[in-house]
Amino acid sequence: MSATPYQQLEQEWRRLHAFLGALSLLRWDAAVMMPRGSSDVRGEQLAALETEYHALLTTPRITRLLDRAQANSQGLEDWQLANLREMRRQRDHAIATPVSLISRLARATSRAEVQWAEARRQNNFELFAPHLEEVVNLVRDKAALLGQALGLPPYDALMDEFSPGISAADMDAIFKALARRLPGLIREILVLQSTHQPLPLNGKFAPGKQRTLVIEVMRAIGFPFDRGRLDESEHPFTEGVPGDIRVTTRFDGGDLFSGLLGAMHETGHAMYDLGLPQAWRDQPVGRDRGMALEESQSLLLEMIVGRSRPFVEYLRPLLQKHFAVTGPEWEADNIYRKLNYVQRSLIRVDADEVTYPLHILLRYELEKKLLSGELAVREVPEAWNAGMEQRLEVRASGPADGCLQDIHWALGSFGYFPSYALGAVIAAQLWESLHTHNPEVERQIARGEFSGLFGWLREHVHGLGAKVTVNELMKDATDQPLSANALLRYLETKYLEGAA
Amino acid sequence: MSATPYQQLEQEWRRLHAFLGALSLLRWDAAVMMPRGSSDVRGEQLAALETEYHALLTTPRITRLLDRAQANSQGLEDWQLANLREMRRQRDHAIATPVSLISRLARATSRAEVQWAEARRQNNFELFAPHLEEVVNLVRDKAALLGQALGLPPYDALMDEFSPGISAADMDAIFKALARRLPGLIREILVLQSTHQPLPLNGKFAPGKQRTLVIEVMRAIGFPFDRGRLDESEHPFTEGVPGDIRVTTRFDGGDLFSGLLGAMHETGHAMYDLGLPQAWRDQPVGRDRGMALEESQSLLLEMIVGRSRPFVEYLRPLLQKHFAVTGPEWEADNIYRKLNYVQRSLIRVDADEVTYPLHILLRYELEKKLLSGELAVREVPEAWNAGMEQRLEVRASGPADGCLQDIHWALGSFGYFPSYALGAVIAAQLWESLHTHNPEVERQIARGEFSGLFGWLREHVHGLGAKVTVNELMKDATDQPLSANALLRYLETKYLEGAA
Repeated sequence: MSATPYQQLEQEWRRLHAFLGALSLLRWDAAVMMPRGSSDVRGEQLAALETEYHALLTTPRITRLLDRAQANSQGLEDWQLANLREMRRQRDHAIATPVSLISRLARATSRAEVQWAEARRQNNFELFAPHLEEVVNLVRDKAALLGQALGLPPYDALMDEFSPGISAADMDAIFKALARRLPGLIREILVLQSTHQPLPLNGKFAPGKQRTLVIEVMRAIGFPFDRGRLDESEHPFTEGVPGDIRVTTRFDGGDLFSGLLGAMHETGHAMYDLGLPQAWRDQPVGRDRGMALEESQSLLLEMIVGRSRPFVEYLRPLLQKHFAVTGPEWEADNIYRKLNYVQRSLIRVDADEVTYPLHILLRYELEKKLLSGELAVREVPEAWNAGMEQRLEVRASGPADGCLQDIHWALGSFGYFPSYALGAVIAAQLWESLHTHNPEVERQIARGEFSGLFGWLREHVHGLGAKVTVNELMKDATDQPLSANALLRYLETKYLEGAA
Repeated sequence: MSATPYQQLEQEWRRLHAFLGALSLLRWDAAVMMPRGSSDVRGEQLAALETEYHALLTTPRITRLLDRAQANSQGLEDWQLANLREMRRQRDHAIATPVSLISRLARATSRAEVQWAEARRQNNFELFAPHLEEVVNLVRDKAALLGQALGLPPYDALMDEFSPGISAADMDAIFKALARRLPGLIREILVLQSTHQPLPLNGKFAPGKQRTLVIEVMRAIGFPFDRGRLDESEHPFTEGVPGDIRVTTRFDGGDLFSGLLGAMHETGHAMYDLGLPQAWRDQPVGRDRGMALEESQSLLLEMIVGRSRPFVEYLRPLLQKHFAVTGPEWEADNIYRKLNYVQRSLIRVDADEVTYPLHILLRYELEKKLLSGELAVREVPEAWNAGMEQRLEVRASGPADGCLQDIHWALGSFGYFPSYALGAVIAAQLWESLHTHNPEVERQIARGEFSGLFGWLREHVHGLGAKVTVNELMKDATDQPLSANALLRYLETKYLEGAA
């Protein structure tokens, strides 16, 4: 019996999956292992494989098979129908933007990236402005085409790539709730915090020893080192496929926690990927449910678990074992306060979990206005500074600490920022529900047992792959629609009640 | 103006080159970095990319372009005509074997490889025999098809993949000369050697320190660490492309030389690849001229240079610096004698340069007879033992030390062995000619200067890529046709005169 159209599609996607895995390995190697002078060669390899991947995904044969499988879908199981939907989604995204626009955007962003780095170094926005302008114009074209193809408003179409199924209206509601409560909450926390300043956690912490500690923690969490690696790179990241997953972190000899928490963040991503349904591993339905959900898993492990009192309780004997730290500053209470210190600051990536969503809100507002034309590129620095003053009462000394701090716009990644805030919102809502279902979870973590945490996540999040939408997943896992409520409850409980 | 057929072909091969580079990186990673449990995932990635590479190389579009470029070749430069010839050669090889036979061979060799390892472990040829039989039958079919397509006898067609342009008749002549002289030469050397046995070079040599030494030597040789890496793996190998070349070795804590000489061998391959014409880097004409020439470059550096008196002179102060070795056994003369100790032995990969060609001759004779049907698979162990007795006067205790020692036949790599012997022949002939043109070369090496050596190789070997045949290259570089004469002169001078 010959293969049905649906079976042929599965076969096609097996190949596409292998291509994605190869591309991921090439990127990992470029950041971790590749000799410094070889980036030209790697660039050609990535371009060739990406072009071929795009070509394979957009052949007329795929379109024909999708139509025929759709017309004969009565015998398919639920997950197969979802797989078909995800196949079409991938193909729709790929085909909506003509190759000529993709390559113009690739050239423009590659120039913009270089000029962004230089402008940041020189603390001079003017150097970057014309390149950002070019990128914005091309992304605007892309958003319009993508919107037409997907039947979405342009900005929603961009968001759909990173947070599928989440609209700008959903984001607006979430940000509205956050913007209403967070500034007041920050004020209250700062007052409380001022009466009990944490002691600094100074020392020299050899990177080799930090690595040993991190590996011990990752093993406890359940990271499978026979199916994955931990390495070092300039910026922490996760690459690979569930059968071969690779996380990186960066060790700072004067800071015991940046390397550990960086690794926890990436391990959160990795555990999500490792928990994806094995039976659908090379199919679209077996992939993660987008960046927002990915980010929820990394933030849950880094911010909510990794900076919790139970985790500090688990960690303290390990710190003593590996670094023989002593003194009042290494008491659990001080470590906890240090890891959860709230500050109005300029730099997003260094922000605490309370101020973080406001950093994202600013970028979300600005990038929507940039794309709609309401804000001109040359007005960005002023709008940035005004937004920071309004939301966080701080003012950058120049664009390097302000609107030039993030690489995303230079790369053309508009619609990406919301997934960071959404990740925090989802993480808190899952954590609240997990707590209700497993009241033991914090005591388990204090004992270094993470199977309760990940057992629940696997059942309600990881194991679903891309079968349901983010909204459906949240409704099923938490009995609540997606909203900022749980995040606000979590922050209030932790920082107001917990600080008492 | 639109691209000519020839220009379109160059464009196609740029993409194929990027695929080969990606495949090479995936293989390197599998041997050096990949987690132990991830080989299933990597297997899928390699298969997908190899299948796609094969598909891209064998499209009707390539055939049409080749025909049209051939018909309009009057404006092309010499190197472009050679490029066109090499493009066609690659395509002819790829298209001669039907995909169904390729995949049957892939399955059979993958089973045979597992059974070979088990048979070797159990010292039991019977376990392997039926699998070798299956492989031999399929390789015979492949050789017939390849021979038809290339207009060559079947075994010559297999050899053409590894040693292009070299026929079995060429090999017969070379082996005849070697078989006539080497047994007597070995007898004479063993008599001379018996009067002056080298002292053992015992000690503990930390792998980390060995690595530092090897890197210092590789830097002196000219290996560019901004375009390459040195790592460790179970078996030394070289992967990558000239812009990102990666060699490995394996350190033995009780042997200072196995890791160093392994790295020298691979650095010989790497220097060849790095010296290929940069302007043709992504074209067939810019690639190496086959396995025999590759092996000549690794043997030249490992066996001829790396075990020479001048190199030992250069190396001795480094050994003292890194390992503080002292005593009579660490005098230059003893190190030299130890590195060039001749033995009638059972294992090919441990053999010295005098007995080595006889190990290859045995395999060459047996594999030709296996393919022609003159020898049955079940008769291999007996034929092997008889051959070893006749040529080297040694007898294996069982098949593990005999006909099961090499993996090549399990992998279906028939026609590959001759390139090892040919590599030794080519290396000696190049070395003799290099000596005539640069009488200073040994004094330069003794001072740690390798630019004289590689300057000449770059001009006469590396920089030609695949523009000329091996025979043409040798004629131009040495003013002599390819023959075993220089190797025999080199061995006689080194082991008879040099030992006096």
